[in-house]
Amino acid sequence: MHDVNRQWRLVSRPAAMPEPGNWQLVEGPVPDPGEGQVVARACWLSVDPYMRGRISAGPSYARPVEPGEVMQGGGVGVVVKSRHPAFAPGDVVESMGWGWQDFATLDPRATRKVDPALGPMRHALGILGMPGLTAYFAFLETGAPRPGDTVVVSSAAGAVGQVVGQLASIMGCRAVAVAGGAEKLAWCREIGYAVGVDYKAGDLRGALAAATPEGIDVYFDNTAGPIFDAVMERINLRARIVQCGTIDTYNRPGQPDTGLRHHRHMLVKRARWQGFLYTDVAHRAEEGLARLSALLREGRLRYREDVSEGIEAMPAAFLRLLSGANLGKQLVRVSPEPA
Amino acid sequence: MHDVNRQWRLVSRPAAMPEPGNWQLVEGPVPDPGEGQVVARACWLSVDPYMRGRISAGPSYARPVEPGEVMQGGGVGVVVKSRHPAFAPGDVVESMGWGWQDFATLDPRATRKVDPALGPMRHALGILGMPGLTAYFAFLETGAPRPGDTVVVSSAAGAVGQVVGQLASIMGCRAVAVAGGAEKLAWCREIGYAVGVDYKAGDLRGALAAATPEGIDVYFDNTAGPIFDAVMERINLRARIVQCGTIDTYNRPGQPDTGLRHHRHMLVKRARWQGFLYTDVAHRAEEGLARLSALLREGRLRYREDVSEGIEAMPAAFLRLLSGANLGKQLVRVSPEPA
Repeated sequence: MHDVNRQWRLVSRPAAMPEPGNWQLVEGPVPDPGEGQVVARACWLSVDPYMRGRISAGPSYARPVEPGEVMQGGGVGVVVKSRHPAFAPGDVVESMGWGWQDFATLDPRATRKVDPALGPMRHALGILGMPGLTAYFAFLETGAPRPGDTVVVSSAAGAVGQVVGQLASIMGCRAVAVAGGAEKLAWCREIGYAVGVDYKAGDLRGALAAATPEGIDVYFDNTAGPIFDAVMERINLRARIVQCGTIDTYNRPGQPDTGLRHHRHMLVKRARWQGFLYTDVAHRAEEGLARLSALLREGRLRYREDVSEGIEAMPAAFLRLLSGANLGKQLVRVSPEPA
Repeated sequence: MHDVNRQWRLVSRPAAMPEPGNWQLVEGPVPDPGEGQVVARACWLSVDPYMRGRISAGPSYARPVEPGEVMQGGGVGVVVKSRHPAFAPGDVVESMGWGWQDFATLDPRATRKVDPALGPMRHALGILGMPGLTAYFAFLETGAPRPGDTVVVSSAAGAVGQVVGQLASIMGCRAVAVAGGAEKLAWCREIGYAVGVDYKAGDLRGALAAATPEGIDVYFDNTAGPIFDAVMERINLRARIVQCGTIDTYNRPGQPDTGLRHHRHMLVKRARWQGFLYTDVAHRAEEGLARLSALLREGRLRYREDVSEGIEAMPAAFLRLLSGANLGKQLVRVSPEPA
């Protein structure tokens, strides 16, 4: 345990792909909780694609991080001091409002207690947290899959995608993975994707056509960009497109996103294209966690994580994620879990 | 009445905007119905934007017209000969499978009897036919409007748009018309649109911003193109976008449609963009006609038609429509209605 609080603060906004120098690691005192607050020590911190949006200026669905502020992000750890009746030292807690730091002063309204019986605490940042719940609600409700549907998932081995593929397979769909590289695709096959398409291997359209002989009924899109266009060529009547992420657009902030448009195709196919954001379902977390943890317990869901070591690794872990080098949910181990 | 059957046949496919020479008027004998068939004389023929798609090669939602064939289109008229027990000479009938001709041999499965009590027979091609039913189902179900919503309609004075605007107004929405020119916009104001935007007047974005101070909740899109982009800048959280037509793209067949893409915005706004085609609701026509005819009878709906005279005018009427010169539903009067 540390008696200082190490914090990654944003120094400057990146113009395109972020660089490690956009953040600076500073040390400060361990905070004391104010009335009604909780201070917790991080065991695991998360890096997620949405964080790219938070370091751009300009309007999005959440306030951006200003230079000088602690970088935003989720974490899971152990309460060390509490001035709130619902939390006691030793409680395992998760919050999307942790920040890239050892010790966080948490707002109890944005903090949930993690039940250690449900699985390793790090799962609270992955399959039993925002990414898993995103997969659960976005796929099942916005995607509206039916048995026999062909379901294509981009970033198929990622924190969200791997859950979508397994849920699709469990409910009798044919899951098709789009991911970069043989290792990711091997993992996708292992967990139940029927077939994989390597978007880095060239001839994306041909490979996708071969992988979807009966067309595409549901597209779970984490990327936008050229993968989206290749999928649109193959959608079936009344296809559903879930816009869950747009990582292909993230490192061109401020530039207009131009390319193929799909108006005519949307009409001809009577397709439904809908945006999804976790915050809209966060209040229903318990409902999703009950199902996901049961599937995990029964061995019907698996979850792969990619762990970087030490808070020093935060920017590098984030850049790994943005470049697609991670395999599975990218986490950073910050301090030991309590015995 | 004519003792010959005049037919407009497609001669050649247009590369871009069609020209009158793409069709040829030929004369032939009045057909006799085969067993189970009906022959009817056209009083009114319809021209509709969808017909542009039917004269392009390549896949769409319906088989294209081949050169040499009678041009496809809907009509309404009077049965002259019947070999089907459900139809008798003198019955007023409407069919989407009429074709640009005086006398049509109709498939009874694709022909409906028109109740003269519901209104003038020409309404069966407009407010009490495909355009009106498109407006009814696409707006109410796909658009899912709520009282207080700001509803923007492109081609707002057109066969479909004028009905959408009035339905929006009836159900407590604020309807915003986008149309070309002062005359169309004056009509839109007259029937209940709260405000109009002239897309031909320049500064579309500024005018749309001024017309939608509280943003846009429902966009009923008949055009695609630059109007779509201007609307997307102003959509509210959970906006619904109905893709009912894409007339801006029709005269560039075979060319890729490129321009701004809206993936990020779809996600951030959790918007829903959905294609609509009348054929999906045609089997529910009675349900929609009951409501639309009641609203007409009560004087709560009005409907403007733009009439060209004589079957010779068919290509010119269609080109009027494609260029936006018509005000209201474009029809062609082919022969007198029975007394």
